Amino acid sequence: EVLDVRDVPLVGEYADCLQIGARNMQNFELLKEVGRQTKPVLLKRGPGAKVDEWLLAAEYIATEGNLDILLCERGIRTFESGTRNTLDLAGAALARLLTQLPVLADPSHSTGRRDLVGAMSVAAVGAGLDGLLIEVHAEPSHSEKDGAQTLSLEEFETLIRPLKAVAEGVGRSLDSLHPTSAAATS
Amino acid sequence: EVLDVRDVPLVGEYADCLQIGARNMQNFELLKEVGRQTKPVLLKRGPGAKVDEWLLAAEYIATEGNLDILLCERGIRTFESGTRNTLDLAGAALARLLTQLPVLADPSHSTGRRDLVGAMSVAAVGAGLDGLLIEVHAEPSHSEKDGAQTLSLEEFETLIRPLKAVAEGVGRSLDSLHPTSAAATS
Amino acid sequence: EVLDVRDVPLVGEYADCLQIGARNMQNFELLKEVGRQTKPVLLKRGPGAKVDEWLLAAEYIATEGNLDILLCERGIRTFESGTRNTLDLAGAALARLLTQLPVLADPSHSTGRRDLVGAMSVAAVGAGLDGLLIEVHAEPSHSEKDGAQTLSLEEFETLIRPLKAVAEGVGRSLDSLHPTSAAATS
Amino acid sequence: EVLDVRDVPLVGEYADCLQIGARNMQNFELLKEVGRQTKPVLLKRGPGAKVDEWLLAAEYIATEGNLDILLCERGIRTFESGTRNTLDLAGAALARLLTQLPVLADPSHSTGRRDLVGAMSVAAVGAGLDGLLIEVHAEPSHSEKDGAQTLSLEEFETLIRPLKAVAEGVGRSLDSLHPTSAAATS
Repeated sequence: EVLDVRDVPLVGEYADCLQIGARNMQNFELLKEVGRQTKPVLLKRGPGAKVDEWLLAAEYIATEGNLDILLCERGIRTFESGTRNTLDLAGAALARLLTQLPVLADPSHSTGRRDLVGAMSVAAVGAGLDGLLIEVHAEPSHSEKDGAQTLSLEEFETLIRPLKAVAEGVGRSLDSLHPTSAAATS
Repeated sequence: EVLDVRDVPLVGEYADCLQIGARNMQNFELLKEVGRQTKPVLLKRGPGAKVDEWLLAAEYIATEGNLDILLCERGIRTFESGTRNTLDLAGAALARLLTQLPVLADPSHSTGRRDLVGAMSVAAVGAGLDGLLIEVHAEPSHSEKDGAQTLSLEEFETLIRPLKAVAEGVGRSLDSLHPTSAAATS
Repeated sequence: EVLDVRDVPLVGEYADCLQIGARNMQNFELLKEVGRQTKPVLLKRGPGAKVDEWLLAAEYIATEGNLDILLCERGIRTFESGTRNTLDLAGAALARLLTQLPVLADPSHSTGRRDLVGAMSVAAVGAGLDGLLIEVHAEPSHSEKDGAQTLSLEEFETLIRPLKAVAEGVGRSLDSLHPTSAAATS
Repeated sequence: EVLDVRDVPLVGEYADCLQIGARNMQNFELLKEVGRQTKPVLLKRGPGAKVDEWLLAAEYIATEGNLDILLCERGIRTFESGTRNTLDLAGAALARLLTQLPVLADPSHSTGRRDLVGAMSVAAVGAGLDGLLIEVHAEPSHSEKDGAQTLSLEEFETLIRPLKAVAEGVGRSLDSLHPTSAAATS
């Protein structure tokens, strides 16, 4: 059954984190409702949203009392068609300068290509971001959706070593990345 | 005095590297002329150019015999106005998949903001790119142009340690980055 | 007081037309609720939405039974900063080819400039569109918001003659334009 | 044989109008050379160029003495993929406000779709533009390139009546449109 805004508290009883999808970034009623919950909220940037609009959307959540907000850059719409969207790491790094909130990147949805997920994951950590949302599947070719951008467990494991090294290179550790985001990637 | 295509050989006598600026990425006459030289050519991506058009522009140079080509991503035009252009690291990483040529990033011109140059430099190396073009000035506030995006010598030095660590994290070393690009950043 | 999805039927008792703003184009819960009403729905295109996504959003309304839908193009986000957004008349004309629904243009919000509203209104009718949403105010300089793009009554009146001529030039009449949209412009 | 900048005077002996293609809008050497000729110059807007950059490119021509310049809007690059590019009629109308130069539209290259060429031609004249560049071919399906956007002679003729009516609706006549552009469309 399809859920609506009135079901947010129910979802909050079972979920560890409430995700606002990119298309709902400016669904202000929904933002306010998750702002009244006590679970962390992952706020994805809309593909047509500027950085400052993204931060203002977060304000709608914070104003209701929930300050446990994670921002997630998942690609913006541009003319480039070689990737699904254009991962705006500079915009994500700018969001980190302008706010105290942790900022994550989603290299899977933004690129839409498995062969770029690794490079963009490492780049995001190098840019100082606080976490990653990576699509992983035991058998990507059997994945019901988004298979083209999904890593196998082996590909994901191969990624851990460079991620660890780069995190340390910028004064972080994989453990220091935001715990919700760590959960989201596993 | 303003130079034109006929002066390319003269420039080649004195310069270590011939740079094709972003506005000239599809100036085919100029591409062919630098293709006849023996000096390396740095080909900047046009701000309105797709990755495959960028690679086709490189073909114009290669077809004339000069295979010593470096590609440089310097930001594409999008609706985001918090940065000057949008640094497309996924597009640059895609160019590396599609060609044997080294691919560089220019975090200075793409962001137009000194406070993002460091993060984007480290991100670019994390993405597996082969070099960086960074604007540095002994006194950025006295820089005649582009001061807002220019690092001081101290800021540049601070960047070396994380760049080194991240390069090693992805199986490279600062020395292994393309020598022309190393020269360009000093 | 702020209204939410549950108030849609109440709004429908008083309003002649239910407008879905550009930021809510993919608020599927709201789309379904207006789909259960008997009033016409004006569905604005999101500034980051492709034409086919706009048409799919209209499907959410139609599926619930309300077929009285008007589409409204109000500008998409691009790199051009001389106008607030880029009025995509070709996209609007394409929507007309792909659907039976009337398609309107909003030359006020898309350009953000009073001195372009007239030209874009006439262009939209020339493109075969079915109606216009024009901001008019008795005293634009006293308008609380959007004053820079708002026509005075005199400017609006001056526009009627060319609009009438162009409508007839493309085999329409001002009266034949969609009645809801005519109401919206007055 | 491929021509280069040095051949511009030779071309000028035979051509009625010198066209600078969109990719060469910022080829300053070429702009200056056509600025030294006595033939009209048609300057296409680059797909990634802002309106003010387009006008500055025209300055390069004018500074050399040739003031017979026609600007031509041929679509900018955006995320919308239903049309080849996005015809920016508001940008073209803005160029007319900011300069004395005639401004044309190219509905063929911008849309890339024959079924939109008519609507966009009429829209452009409705927007007050000064001419059109329309691809016409006796047998579009045999056209060597750009067939998908090319009108047949019959389709072109059908377009004359609405164009005439709309031109008169905005206080112009087909004859008053710029003579060079008239030639270009035939």
